[in-house]
Amino acid sequence: MATFKGFAMKKLNETGWVEKEVPECGPLDAIVRPTCVSPCTSDIHTVWEGAIGDRKDMVLGHEAVGVVEEVGSLVKNIKVGDKVIVPAITPDWDDEAAQRGYPSQTTEPLGGWKFSNFKDGVFGERFHVNLADANLALMPEGLTDEAAVMLVDMWSTGMMGSENANIPLGGSVLVIGIGAVGLSAIAGAALLGAADIYAAGTRPISVKVAKEYGATEIINYREAPIDEQVREATDGAGVDSVIIAGGNLTNTWKEAVASTKAGGTISNVNYLSGADDVLIPRVEWGCGMSNINITNGLCPGGRVRMERLARLALTNRADPELLVTHRFKGLEKIEDALYLMKDKPKDLIKPIVKID
Amino acid sequence: MATFKGFAMKKLNETGWVEKEVPECGPLDAIVRPTCVSPCTSDIHTVWEGAIGDRKDMVLGHEAVGVVEEVGSLVKNIKVGDKVIVPAITPDWDDEAAQRGYPSQTTEPLGGWKFSNFKDGVFGERFHVNLADANLALMPEGLTDEAAVMLVDMWSTGMMGSENANIPLGGSVLVIGIGAVGLSAIAGAALLGAADIYAAGTRPISVKVAKEYGATEIINYREAPIDEQVREATDGAGVDSVIIAGGNLTNTWKEAVASTKAGGTISNVNYLSGADDVLIPRVEWGCGMSNINITNGLCPGGRVRMERLARLALTNRADPELLVTHRFKGLEKIEDALYLMKDKPKDLIKPIVKID
Amino acid sequence: MATFKGFAMKKLNETGWVEKEVPECGPLDAIVRPTCVSPCTSDIHTVWEGAIGDRKDMVLGHEAVGVVEEVGSLVKNIKVGDKVIVPAITPDWDDEAAQRGYPSQTTEPLGGWKFSNFKDGVFGERFHVNLADANLALMPEGLTDEAAVMLVDMWSTGMMGSENANIPLGGSVLVIGIGAVGLSAIAGAALLGAADIYAAGTRPISVKVAKEYGATEIINYREAPIDEQVREATDGAGVDSVIIAGGNLTNTWKEAVASTKAGGTISNVNYLSGADDVLIPRVEWGCGMSNINITNGLCPGGRVRMERLARLALTNRADPELLVTHRFKGLEKIEDALYLMKDKPKDLIKPIVKID
Amino acid sequence: MATFKGFAMKKLNETGWVEKEVPECGPLDAIVRPTCVSPCTSDIHTVWEGAIGDRKDMVLGHEAVGVVEEVGSLVKNIKVGDKVIVPAITPDWDDEAAQRGYPSQTTEPLGGWKFSNFKDGVFGERFHVNLADANLALMPEGLTDEAAVMLVDMWSTGMMGSENANIPLGGSVLVIGIGAVGLSAIAGAALLGAADIYAAGTRPISVKVAKEYGATEIINYREAPIDEQVREATDGAGVDSVIIAGGNLTNTWKEAVASTKAGGTISNVNYLSGADDVLIPRVEWGCGMSNINITNGLCPGGRVRMERLARLALTNRADPELLVTHRFKGLEKIEDALYLMKDKPKDLIKPIVKID
Repeated sequence: MATFKGFAMKKLNETGWVEKEVPECGPLDAIVRPTCVSPCTSDIHTVWEGAIGDRKDMVLGHEAVGVVEEVGSLVKNIKVGDKVIVPAITPDWDDEAAQRGYPSQTTEPLGGWKFSNFKDGVFGERFHVNLADANLALMPEGLTDEAAVMLVDMWSTGMMGSENANIPLGGSVLVIGIGAVGLSAIAGAALLGAADIYAAGTRPISVKVAKEYGATEIINYREAPIDEQVREATDGAGVDSVIIAGGNLTNTWKEAVASTKAGGTISNVNYLSGADDVLIPRVEWGCGMSNINITNGLCPGGRVRMERLARLALTNRADPELLVTHRFKGLEKIEDALYLMKDKPKDLIKPIVKID
Repeated sequence: MATFKGFAMKKLNETGWVEKEVPECGPLDAIVRPTCVSPCTSDIHTVWEGAIGDRKDMVLGHEAVGVVEEVGSLVKNIKVGDKVIVPAITPDWDDEAAQRGYPSQTTEPLGGWKFSNFKDGVFGERFHVNLADANLALMPEGLTDEAAVMLVDMWSTGMMGSENANIPLGGSVLVIGIGAVGLSAIAGAALLGAADIYAAGTRPISVKVAKEYGATEIINYREAPIDEQVREATDGAGVDSVIIAGGNLTNTWKEAVASTKAGGTISNVNYLSGADDVLIPRVEWGCGMSNINITNGLCPGGRVRMERLARLALTNRADPELLVTHRFKGLEKIEDALYLMKDKPKDLIKPIVKID
Repeated sequence: MATFKGFAMKKLNETGWVEKEVPECGPLDAIVRPTCVSPCTSDIHTVWEGAIGDRKDMVLGHEAVGVVEEVGSLVKNIKVGDKVIVPAITPDWDDEAAQRGYPSQTTEPLGGWKFSNFKDGVFGERFHVNLADANLALMPEGLTDEAAVMLVDMWSTGMMGSENANIPLGGSVLVIGIGAVGLSAIAGAALLGAADIYAAGTRPISVKVAKEYGATEIINYREAPIDEQVREATDGAGVDSVIIAGGNLTNTWKEAVASTKAGGTISNVNYLSGADDVLIPRVEWGCGMSNINITNGLCPGGRVRMERLARLALTNRADPELLVTHRFKGLEKIEDALYLMKDKPKDLIKPIVKID
Repeated sequence: MATFKGFAMKKLNETGWVEKEVPECGPLDAIVRPTCVSPCTSDIHTVWEGAIGDRKDMVLGHEAVGVVEEVGSLVKNIKVGDKVIVPAITPDWDDEAAQRGYPSQTTEPLGGWKFSNFKDGVFGERFHVNLADANLALMPEGLTDEAAVMLVDMWSTGMMGSENANIPLGGSVLVIGIGAVGLSAIAGAALLGAADIYAAGTRPISVKVAKEYGATEIINYREAPIDEQVREATDGAGVDSVIIAGGNLTNTWKEAVASTKAGGTISNVNYLSGADDVLIPRVEWGCGMSNINITNGLCPGGRVRMERLARLALTNRADPELLVTHRFKGLEKIEDALYLMKDKPKDLIKPIVKID
């Protein structure tokens, strides 16, 4: 196969199918044919909000599982024909940022994010993966494509939100935003020892999954400010941890800080946009002396992360397929799936597209 | 009430009922009447194995819930008549070890453990609690006595084993020993992000609860050395974390170290006895260069710990009552319950005694 | 002594001497006569900027060493006549926030700060200390009053800034603001493994002490934005850690974030004022995905903290007296010392007042 | 150059010069010509104590700086002619153990240690380095060869001992063994916030450097058990942290545990040999409930580690050359240097060999 077809961002605000040359497979790399993909809100940000600036004919998508079509001469553990889970983030593991402990930030800030950012993404007949041994995980027996494709970004990002949130065993957590990432954060909070999990959101389908993933109380942010509702529900105490997986830059952060106990943690997993600055309310933050920490992060990638998340699914700690609300079949349906993500109907969490 | 009746260690190897004066209630303290208690293996160690040396007419027991009968003049939050959860460990929170972050080690090593160690325990009509505000948790609505009495030592100790075990999200854990503490460690591992949980034990009742608490595979240590079975189950990789909640000082530690990945953690919650030294196998420990850490700890006590564990029960993260296999009624039945614990019949995990 | 004289905030923008009743010494408390005190920038904020709102006839000051004049009936380790170091922050160690690991936040956010906030401070002939055993440290042999009084807030706060900054061994640190707290942060950074320490400030006396405490390069923020200078000095890499000990809410935080590597930490020790919000620049913060954490804290208090800082001074790891630039003698000179702090002449870091 | 000369372990208990083919330079690798090397006690263990089993004609040595002679086709940042610092440990950064956070344990336990273990070491005219970009650090201006060669194993290992020791700021540390690694641990403890540093050792040259690196008190272990002396020096309290950098498996560990506070940490950096088991004294370890953690590790390697240690030297935080007591010149003098290390005369810490 010399060329491949892919669904691309043609330029800002415009998508379409393109035909491109199959990328060269470097000695450490692999070429993969996707068998299942899923569009992400980031794809929407990229095309219609200019989140990463302009791109020309860049194939979209960074959530995929697939089959290895080609491997480089130095690849040791991955073979042609292997069914693989492809992390959305594929770090350069020998870079200095990885040595410092931050593989998602390799080569440059956010540099572990390559698909549909620096290079063509996974919404095509073929795509390129750097450092195949380090970045591809073999699909284990017993895991479906639909389940596995939810791990590569949604679970990895959302659960990182909980890992960064310093949740004490038996502690309380507020998750703001219950799209697929927020829901994964809820699952992560339940898996990491939270007792009370407050989920701020309104869409019925998300509310349902939030409860299945472990939320103990739903907060409808339309009824009153989130912090007021949290303070009331906790007898004024506030929560140990807040995970921000949605909202805006106007009032979400203020409500988050105002919901947190002194000594608590605010963990961001939201791809922030819409204003130049995040506003941390001074008084609620204890004039900078409240011991409230604010953390963030980019989705962890790499083989080991995927293997561990797969074990969580296989041991039934949580079910990734709860996130999948819409199923398409055939490469060409990627377009429909992406526009569904853009339109965000009431009953949508995540669509997937099975290929072949 | 000027005197109270209690079931005591009269001296090494001898138990019996004693009549003692009700202790004075210091200005910061409380006197509590137990409504439910449970004997612990430590009580057996204390009486029949001389684990803490000789004691004369010391009332036994350190697991209780009860009702406050008297409070000191400086106690602010606890009132006479309050139903309370009494942690087995009641630290001196203003001591230097608490300021260093180790409240269970206040005033002296293991000094947070006072009941049936330095002073009369909870197996009587009344008992004394130091620092009532800091050490007593109000019994929340919806929690039974039977459930709550499982939190004060079993859950707190066992789950500490998991908290100390540095379990990665989606990681693998081996729990050696599935008595009540080991089972609580399993529940803790599942609550703290473990995927695969290997439980080494044989008693059917414990095996059943181990699975209900989240164990994914049972290892019968009689069939082959534990490490051989773990290595086989993990394709040679070993586990990320081992929690030692049973076994002996002859070969358990060797098997634990040999089961652990380089970079893994071994977390002890077993009250060690039976030999002068713990033997860490040199070669399996990588000649001291394997990055395998060994941690231990004494059951965390205090009000906040109890409140958080209660929240875990109330939000149905796990059910403490699964540990309770035998139920007695009436103060005088403490004797039967303790001897049951000593005899350890096949169908026993923990007995409790309800006191009117 | 039934009454005592103290230098007080009479109301907003007004100070003066007051005569008040000596406070009652509760059973766990102590009454102390100061032998050396030091005014703090916070006192200035309190009186002339309304930082904590209005107060009436509240004795100022929270930095002192002194002699114990009276102890409560339950105090065990502190005796009348003991020379003691008095931490600026005196937590309620049995409170739930202390059990959660945040003693400075006990009873309410920032609640460990009592002197010249909730109750009369140390600028009088006598002052009251809660929980004497837990909060007073015996003055060790070999430590001067001048040195010790620099530990209670300046060192404890500044060095906390470094402890919270996640400095890797051999890493790089930027300290913004080189007043007494910033200088202590520099000393802390050098003590906690930093190699390169960039200090942003201009006053010659502070620059001199910054270098003595371990700063390797001075950044004059008047010449160019701090982040530009840091990026240039680090070949574009930025620093591992930033400690904010000064500046404003207009551009300091923007420069701080822009100076930090992905994966780095920003640690605040500045008592923030002057605007409603702290502005975190969205793009420089990696749209919330840079793994740049933001931490803050309130000065750690208590006996153990004071003892440890005293050991640092006594083992010559750093010299607290380098901070003392002006010395007064006599209780009545507190007024001059405070106004000196208010006027902040060029050659001032900290004044102290010896009493008796 | 088709062949190179090297000083080798010919077999157990026998050394000698060998002539071998220059290894092939893989696409990611480099071939380096050493300009300065240093023998290590491990080389002695390897040859005369069979520590890693038998080896045939394996070139010894793992401490070197040198000049790059050849680089593979995929190497990006390292060029022929570059002067480089070569870490003793050269991890496979894309391996799963590195992704788990333990690069020194890549491919197998201790697998990051390749030189003079799995492959020819650095005591020859040429040697091979895997993953040149990730593992070689450019020699910075201002650093001598003698200084740099002390970083690659001695400082990296010894300071890791301190990093793993959980030293509180202002805390107390005991370092057992004051050879080059123990001395580096002392330097590390001083750099990581220790106040009191007790150094157990006797050789005058080491005692001198121990004090220069920050030891505050020397303990002569011949006079009385170490723990007795530590307890006396600390008024019975014990120390916060113990670093084991020497001693034996008979009584050193018992003394280490007995010297440690409840809640303290014991950090091993000693390459353990001489018995099958490390003995942890049960009672002193609080019957497994003392909160005393035991950690170990293998020397951290890689480019970033070397760069950071170099910055510590260049900013004068500590002087690596203090470790160098003997200087040789010329490749052939490696033999003398190694035998000097074997004989360990009184005035020796570390010899180095400059190779023009």
